Amino acid sequence: MIIRNLITKGIFEQRGYVAPEQTGDIKLDANENPFTLQEPLKRKLLEKMSSVDLNRYPAAGAPELRKRFAGYFGVQENMMMLGNGSDELIQILCLALKGKINGVLVPVPTFSMYKIIAVNTGHKVVELPLDNNFDLDAKFIKEKIKNNFPALIFLSCPNSPTGNLFSRDKIEAIIKKAPGVVVIDEAYADFSGQTMLPLLKKYDNVIFLKTLSKLGMASIRLGFLIGSPKIIEQLDKVRLPYNINSLSQIAAGFFLDNKREFSKQIKEITKRRDELYKALKQIPWMNAYPSRANFIFFSCAFDSNRIYKKLVAEGIVVKNLNSPPLTTNCMRVTVGSKKENEALVNALKKITPK
Amino acid sequence: MIIRNLITKGIFEQRGYVAPEQTGDIKLDANENPFTLQEPLKRKLLEKMSSVDLNRYPAAGAPELRKRFAGYFGVQENMMMLGNGSDELIQILCLALKGKINGVLVPVPTFSMYKIIAVNTGHKVVELPLDNNFDLDAKFIKEKIKNNFPALIFLSCPNSPTGNLFSRDKIEAIIKKAPGVVVIDEAYADFSGQTMLPLLKKYDNVIFLKTLSKLGMASIRLGFLIGSPKIIEQLDKVRLPYNINSLSQIAAGFFLDNKREFSKQIKEITKRRDELYKALKQIPWMNAYPSRANFIFFSCAFDSNRIYKKLVAEGIVVKNLNSPPLTTNCMRVTVGSKKENEALVNALKKITPK
Repeated sequence: MIIRNLITKGIFEQRGYVAPEQTGDIKLDANENPFTLQEPLKRKLLEKMSSVDLNRYPAAGAPELRKRFAGYFGVQENMMMLGNGSDELIQILCLALKGKINGVLVPVPTFSMYKIIAVNTGHKVVELPLDNNFDLDAKFIKEKIKNNFPALIFLSCPNSPTGNLFSRDKIEAIIKKAPGVVVIDEAYADFSGQTMLPLLKKYDNVIFLKTLSKLGMASIRLGFLIGSPKIIEQLDKVRLPYNINSLSQIAAGFFLDNKREFSKQIKEITKRRDELYKALKQIPWMNAYPSRANFIFFSCAFDSNRIYKKLVAEGIVVKNLNSPPLTTNCMRVTVGSKKENEALVNALKKITPK
Repeated sequence: MIIRNLITKGIFEQRGYVAPEQTGDIKLDANENPFTLQEPLKRKLLEKMSSVDLNRYPAAGAPELRKRFAGYFGVQENMMMLGNGSDELIQILCLALKGKINGVLVPVPTFSMYKIIAVNTGHKVVELPLDNNFDLDAKFIKEKIKNNFPALIFLSCPNSPTGNLFSRDKIEAIIKKAPGVVVIDEAYADFSGQTMLPLLKKYDNVIFLKTLSKLGMASIRLGFLIGSPKIIEQLDKVRLPYNINSLSQIAAGFFLDNKREFSKQIKEITKRRDELYKALKQIPWMNAYPSRANFIFFSCAFDSNRIYKKLVAEGIVVKNLNSPPLTTNCMRVTVGSKKENEALVNALKKITPK
């Protein structure tokens, strides 16, 4: 057996996603909600879980949950699909949208899984550097659309890791020009107080991704895809029939039952973000960028690898994005609890240019 | 947007998997373990689950669980990978094994997802009818291997829906001839009292699939892939990093903590299967086949659609496989509890040729 002859070329040649291995008491690297469920709520959830017949397959396609979340997002049931995290939905999109029109466009920097999954599913990937304000360069993108004619354009709004919202005008211009589908990933939209979902009424080639991962339920892996029924119908053929396990289905229902509690946490995180931003602005050797998400992006005046190690030594884990030329010495920190943010700021203040 | 130009041709033209919609008090259609967890055990599991931080991502790649299950199956850690059900692992295999050598060979009849996933990932699929005893036709397969040079050959052992084990000699002959990988799906192996895992020591191009779905934990979606480290290394690049959610990780650990309890259930099911087989053999209008799995396959002397409806009317759901020419008027029933099997046999006895 000669591995090289068997493995898909793009996969053989790519490194794959490297999950963060470092861990610490203060985990600010994965854009999770810092608040765990309070004890009485947790008990309620466990009680709900006791109703699951562990020996039975989950409801295929999770129709009840799909209906409830369609209501939550204000769309028709046949406009949505659930996934084992947004990752699975990105994979389904990349598998299904590979017809006469194919290929994927992604901004740089952005969420790394778009490119990894596109490569693994055999797409040609075209990367588009963002402008100096991390906004889309609409003219440049139009040119790339014309030359590459991509089936998929992924736009993370707000964008990870930079934290900004792309201009709505530019997004609409891209949707109009795209020969395929524009995917607007709103994983962080709850922290921006703004959604572009109404674009669904205007365009049939826009698809939205949403997730519970940033809202307090990263553990259960639940993502949502929202789009035109005629696309969903095709995507649903690629979805593995029992993709959402029974326990996650219960937990997601519980999220809806207690959505006020989770909304409160989102407000709290948004408040903490603005505090943290102000504090980071006081540190002379870094340039923190304004954020509409639950994290803050900053560039450092010296080696960010050293900063990363210093923070780890204090039990604080952040995301080190040191990747030239666009994010040289850049880092991303998740907004934590008041105490966690204070610990971060204190640790950062202690670090000085050599 | 013209859907036909965007969607992958094979996907556009295929129907996709249709999950069973019918439901009833006696569910014998999905090869689940009929026994739910007893109350004290369930409490223990819920207690374990209370330790999960719902707001945090699951452990990427589930390293602890992987280690424990490697021990359980008696293989090295770097020889295994966990999936969101075997479905996800089949998808990973089909995505990764599409190099210079590609294409998929599947016996007919067999588990339908092999073909569906192979088509969705862009493979050419060659179907191989089984012989009159539902065994592999080794000579015919060798010819097809020579002409098609497939990257993947899927063999379900025992085979679903027919319930038999393919001859080991024929399997070995196929492994020796295959230019790519032979996947032995042992979803039902625990009911056969036999595993072919030792073949891993002899061949580097054999891969095994295992699952908890038939053993009492279909709800949590956990499948295992076991094979040579150099294949796993490549497959792992395609695996979505957080594919196993935290709750399922806990439940799977709990399965290992209580493996004796689950072993007892497997023994009980095996005993009930042999009882059920004897009872079905008494019904004059059907031909039941011997089974090494947790289900029994039979052909009927008349329209199985009518039989299916009659059973549904009595609250019993089975799998109707009526698909000419190979499984005309054929059905598959899962082995249930003593009471469920008796209800099934009584309902079948009441049905007569018109």
